[in-house]
Amino acid sequence: MELGALGGRSALTNARSVFFANPRENNVTEYDPKKFYDDLVAHKLIYPTAVKGTFGRSGVFEDVLNRLNQLIDREAHADQAEFVQFPPVIDRTIIEKCGFMDSFPHLMGAIFSFAGRDKHALEISSRIGKGEPWGDLLGMSEVVLAPAACYPVYPTMTGTLPEKGKLITLTGWAFRHEPSDEPTRMQSFRVRELIRFGTPDMCLAWRDEWHVRGQSLLEKLGLPVASDVAADPFFGRGGKIMADGQKAQKLKFEVLVPVISKTEPTAVCSFNYHTDHFGKPFEILTADGQIAHSACLGFGMERCTMALFRTHGFDPEKWPKAVREQLYP
Amino acid sequence: MELGALGGRSALTNARSVFFANPRENNVTEYDPKKFYDDLVAHKLIYPTAVKGTFGRSGVFEDVLNRLNQLIDREAHADQAEFVQFPPVIDRTIIEKCGFMDSFPHLMGAIFSFAGRDKHALEISSRIGKGEPWGDLLGMSEVVLAPAACYPVYPTMTGTLPEKGKLITLTGWAFRHEPSDEPTRMQSFRVRELIRFGTPDMCLAWRDEWHVRGQSLLEKLGLPVASDVAADPFFGRGGKIMADGQKAQKLKFEVLVPVISKTEPTAVCSFNYHTDHFGKPFEILTADGQIAHSACLGFGMERCTMALFRTHGFDPEKWPKAVREQLYP
Repeated sequence: MELGALGGRSALTNARSVFFANPRENNVTEYDPKKFYDDLVAHKLIYPTAVKGTFGRSGVFEDVLNRLNQLIDREAHADQAEFVQFPPVIDRTIIEKCGFMDSFPHLMGAIFSFAGRDKHALEISSRIGKGEPWGDLLGMSEVVLAPAACYPVYPTMTGTLPEKGKLITLTGWAFRHEPSDEPTRMQSFRVRELIRFGTPDMCLAWRDEWHVRGQSLLEKLGLPVASDVAADPFFGRGGKIMADGQKAQKLKFEVLVPVISKTEPTAVCSFNYHTDHFGKPFEILTADGQIAHSACLGFGMERCTMALFRTHGFDPEKWPKAVREQLYP
Repeated sequence: MELGALGGRSALTNARSVFFANPRENNVTEYDPKKFYDDLVAHKLIYPTAVKGTFGRSGVFEDVLNRLNQLIDREAHADQAEFVQFPPVIDRTIIEKCGFMDSFPHLMGAIFSFAGRDKHALEISSRIGKGEPWGDLLGMSEVVLAPAACYPVYPTMTGTLPEKGKLITLTGWAFRHEPSDEPTRMQSFRVRELIRFGTPDMCLAWRDEWHVRGQSLLEKLGLPVASDVAADPFFGRGGKIMADGQKAQKLKFEVLVPVISKTEPTAVCSFNYHTDHFGKPFEILTADGQIAHSACLGFGMERCTMALFRTHGFDPEKWPKAVREQLYP
């Protein structure tokens, strides 16, 4: 029932404390999400596309994003994390095995493909020409889009962990089918994750340590961060009960920064304890033969980048010296 | 009718000249694709997954791939190319507009999502529990996977180009639904592209100049390259005629390196002249009001990386000094 990193609602209304470091922001009572989107476009940081949540990123946007990722690289190297990479499409049975469709069916993207013959292909061309739907001529393939960057990692961990567990890191494209005009809510975005496997104690201690480190890393970038317990966006009538349970157990924390709203700051980083949610279906065992637990953290790379533009302005060359020293060492 | 960069069959039987720089390779009459895959796994360069063509890449693999990309960055900077980034999913109407489904329906991946209510979601969970198909409960969304990294760029170019045209560059994930056991044929892979917009003369001259530069860049990495005219993998009975036409017009060239076969080298880079195939549907005009032409080139990043491992061995620290000087400047 875990969405993995950065699953939470982006704008929590229950953030306990939010402070603003930048006096410029205090001139405005509330931010306007549309104005922020338009400003990103006007400053050539993003390029609009016809479908919501799929805009292009400019070279300047990407440079900031990559430099932020390199900052996290250095932390991950210090922790001796194992670096991996996976494509944005994953084995469909991964989401089937871990109950993703029970909790988040509305966010999933399944890949359908064409396996017909010439006459069916001609039918597709004809329908496209007439502006008619053609999805019924496709079939479900063996792959889906990764709903979180960490999902492809779990099946590769099947077996027995070393004594001290494992720590994996990757930057991956995640897909969520939630078209929105609001720039921080994308259909496709990158998450930098670290994933810890081991005993319950190892995973909890790691998550709590990184909760502090992650927040500190963002504070050093001059971002006005706040932290709060959070819940994943569970589907349907049972969703609220699931979310309440997740919050009561304090399984998920988020670090939030005002990006499109002052009163409803955006989750830019999340810290998640999965218990045995992935260890059980993927048969991951600790060195002493128990079912392994896992925890993960995820930096929403586009959101962190937008938080920097919101806080320090649209021109990175004019950002405060202390911030630039972090990103341009 | 253009697939864009790296559309060709990976293993051309009609390569005119293939030479081998590395004496180690000459000991073997022919390569074994399965052994190469197993060697990549044994050296912890790729991690197997349950679905063909979706394997994980290790930190060492990624480091080589990124360094190669940085090498191309330097060339792109010298050319004053504009850097952009797009997500792996794109507006479905892009592939509808440029006739992709007429030519390559078998390679396409369309994203289907769920928009039902609680009872339909429960039905999905129930079917997954029973191991039954559940694709009929999903509907076609407004996005598809990018079949080539350059596709999202075209609609952003609508309008009139500057006098000297435009040059764009990006690294993107491309999807092709062609599951294969063979390591160089992936369902999802990265292509580093440069895309030139302008008059026919500008585009042809650029493509031909880069054909030489691209080949030279790979030769400096010690790769035993060959070059040949090529065709995209057109679908169906009419496909051969399309491919013959494309070859006769010399629209596509590929640079090939032996990776899984000595006699059928793998296309690692392609150079494509699109004529007005994209300029027309996306209404891109030259400064003097003509329909713009375009050309693109694409380095298959995983394939180039694998070509390096094939040619120089599985440990980058032991690669020849001249090769390392290029990648680790």
